[in-house]
Amino acid sequence: MNGLLTDLYELTMAAGFFDAGKAEEVATFEVALRRLPANRNYVLAAGIPQVVDYLLNLSFTAEEIEYLRGLAQFRNASPAFFDYLRRLRFTGDLFAVPEGAPLFAGEPLLTIRAPIVEAQIPETYVLSAVTFPTLVASKAARMVEVSGGRAVVEFGTRRAHTPEAGVLGARAAYIGGCAGTSNTLAGFRYGIPVMGTAAHSWVMAFAGEAEAFRQLQRALGESTIQLIDTYDTLEGARRAAQTGQPMWGVRLDSGDLLALSRQVRAILDQAGLEDAKIMASGDLNEYGIRDLVRAGAPIDVFGVGTELATSADAPTMAATYKMVELDIQGIKRFTAKFSEDKVSFPGAKQVFRDVARDVVARSGECGRGEALLRPVILGGKLVEPLPSLEQARQRAAESIAKLTPALRELEVAEPWPVIYSRELKALIEQTRRNLLA
Amino acid sequence: MNGLLTDLYELTMAAGFFDAGKAEEVATFEVALRRLPANRNYVLAAGIPQVVDYLLNLSFTAEEIEYLRGLAQFRNASPAFFDYLRRLRFTGDLFAVPEGAPLFAGEPLLTIRAPIVEAQIPETYVLSAVTFPTLVASKAARMVEVSGGRAVVEFGTRRAHTPEAGVLGARAAYIGGCAGTSNTLAGFRYGIPVMGTAAHSWVMAFAGEAEAFRQLQRALGESTIQLIDTYDTLEGARRAAQTGQPMWGVRLDSGDLLALSRQVRAILDQAGLEDAKIMASGDLNEYGIRDLVRAGAPIDVFGVGTELATSADAPTMAATYKMVELDIQGIKRFTAKFSEDKVSFPGAKQVFRDVARDVVARSGECGRGEALLRPVILGGKLVEPLPSLEQARQRAAESIAKLTPALRELEVAEPWPVIYSRELKALIEQTRRNLLA
Repeated sequence: MNGLLTDLYELTMAAGFFDAGKAEEVATFEVALRRLPANRNYVLAAGIPQVVDYLLNLSFTAEEIEYLRGLAQFRNASPAFFDYLRRLRFTGDLFAVPEGAPLFAGEPLLTIRAPIVEAQIPETYVLSAVTFPTLVASKAARMVEVSGGRAVVEFGTRRAHTPEAGVLGARAAYIGGCAGTSNTLAGFRYGIPVMGTAAHSWVMAFAGEAEAFRQLQRALGESTIQLIDTYDTLEGARRAAQTGQPMWGVRLDSGDLLALSRQVRAILDQAGLEDAKIMASGDLNEYGIRDLVRAGAPIDVFGVGTELATSADAPTMAATYKMVELDIQGIKRFTAKFSEDKVSFPGAKQVFRDVARDVVARSGECGRGEALLRPVILGGKLVEPLPSLEQARQRAAESIAKLTPALRELEVAEPWPVIYSRELKALIEQTRRNLLA
Repeated sequence: MNGLLTDLYELTMAAGFFDAGKAEEVATFEVALRRLPANRNYVLAAGIPQVVDYLLNLSFTAEEIEYLRGLAQFRNASPAFFDYLRRLRFTGDLFAVPEGAPLFAGEPLLTIRAPIVEAQIPETYVLSAVTFPTLVASKAARMVEVSGGRAVVEFGTRRAHTPEAGVLGARAAYIGGCAGTSNTLAGFRYGIPVMGTAAHSWVMAFAGEAEAFRQLQRALGESTIQLIDTYDTLEGARRAAQTGQPMWGVRLDSGDLLALSRQVRAILDQAGLEDAKIMASGDLNEYGIRDLVRAGAPIDVFGVGTELATSADAPTMAATYKMVELDIQGIKRFTAKFSEDKVSFPGAKQVFRDVARDVVARSGECGRGEALLRPVILGGKLVEPLPSLEQARQRAAESIAKLTPALRELEVAEPWPVIYSRELKALIEQTRRNLLA
């Protein structure tokens, strides 16, 4: 029932492979990072549960198959293919790096090994399912890194590319270290802490700002965060101070956040509201957060929307889904692409993460350090429960702590060393020679 | 059941409005463009059907309401509020510009008028539902504009921000003038023409390129598009030429597309394959397409992915959802935000599009030209069937044809004149004075 959510060519290739008698051949595909996204020193892998859900539910309804039958591109497909498609389930294997693990250019994120049709069809969905959360988790980590211990909260659903992307983005931002999200469904579905203030419409809906503040306090008690910039921020701060406790604090959403946060802090302190906190939002990104933190802005929580929910400076990631091996009746053929500007590397792989470098090796090799690619699905069955969201978030935090300081900076640094094992290099050369022959 | 897909503050405000006795007050909110996205002279409105679906299905399950009850932010909410939420349906009105209509900075895209809780909750979902398709439709129009009559096909699902965004992006790209999409579900669901070639994995899966080409031809017949850059593009072109008819043509996916398209054209022509076409893809955007077309590259179809499916140069749009009116027991209060860098304008509006300018007026005014905001939902019921996708696409094409040549260029031009009617300006001033008083 999710089978059509893929590029047409996956399905025409499926028909072609089937009718060419290749349905029993077992292909290994890998999702790998051709290069890092703009401005990034690493990415945090995310979106694996969505891949698992997809694979475990991969199927086609009768109506969907009828649609395909009607397309010109399937005119030559055999009736047996459509029968095959009706029964198709994912019976293969998925190996993936753990959610929250940092990855670098040239490294695989996951491997799918299955009869060729089952392995080919997922390409489109799988790429889309992992790249977006990976981008958002990575962007969140940058913001958290420079926040100087202040909480960063994800507020971006309204800017996400569809509402559902907002939910998945909230999840990814939490893996990256955000303290919570404004997205209520993300809270309901994933148990992420949900946070919120009030919109300008709240203030506008009452006869005046003072009345709006009192009413918000009545509704939210200690959770009250007064939004003070609807008309004039400092005037708003004074009204919020007059309204007094109970409240969590106030929120700035426009203007010069550094100057305003200082003035507002002074207003709150003078009113004896030293415990009232300041949240700041309004087109913030990691650079803006860093500048505010460095300048000592008295801001306790950063709310980030647009920039995080779209990974605005790097909205795309050059991940590929390439066939690396094909097992034809027990005989392995290694496959790669050697075209001018887009090269892929043959063979199923493993990544060994050692203290100061990663080694990309062939999948059977032994190596030093942690083996990142682990079995998630074997023979179409989930091997063990996926790590919880909290575990993924924890792994991200611990892994980032082990990176060099330069890689944790916002500026692009000397890359983390990623080298290829001797065996993998030999396989690359051998495959190239075979293809030229 | 879609009720939680919103920011928490919409729901805490809902509780606050309800418990403040404001549930009967009727609010009017509008989605407006604060400014155009980067590099754009106009946007094409899209995503209205998703807004309609959302509003007509807005509701909360018992389980969702239980979740809210458990949150600290709802500790003060009355039991009556949760009863209200359980029965909540959208009973208000939606006015929207037609899908495919160009819009400019400062203009409203849609208006929602409903009891305040019903009008507040949709903010997050509605913004997310319209901004992404609007961005993609607008980006597609730029590509189609400079394509010199060649077809532009959307191939971007794998780069979209979630697979579902790929489906909705394909729909939006079609409104913007794309000839089709690679997304099969978009074809199934919306009737968009679906297109595809083959992946590099197809070529790799066979013993050699020649065998792969023959097998693709066997599978696809006249729909065959040989992907010729897996190993060496010109060598691939010669092999495709040897394979000969039937085929639609060949696809270039890497390298210098201008030089390669000329060399490949020559190879095909020399083999007597003058009818075979050339498709080009590979990180193309509107500038790349324009350069290729200007240079006379013999390319028949452009396949665009990443740049289109994420609107990569402008992945966000500064659209706001602001309350403009509140009807309290028959007395209208006009509302606006006058904070430093984010201003909104009071009053329900209409946009009149005349031959050489747009006039933004108050909703009751008469004006010259076409009134863009039209009733879509009244009293919670769809007024008439939505325009078909083909109609939206047609409207986009006809509307773009009426824009000045400069606005249709890729470079930012003198804006289309958008002026405010005298009545609207008077209302703005009056509202400002009232708020200052």
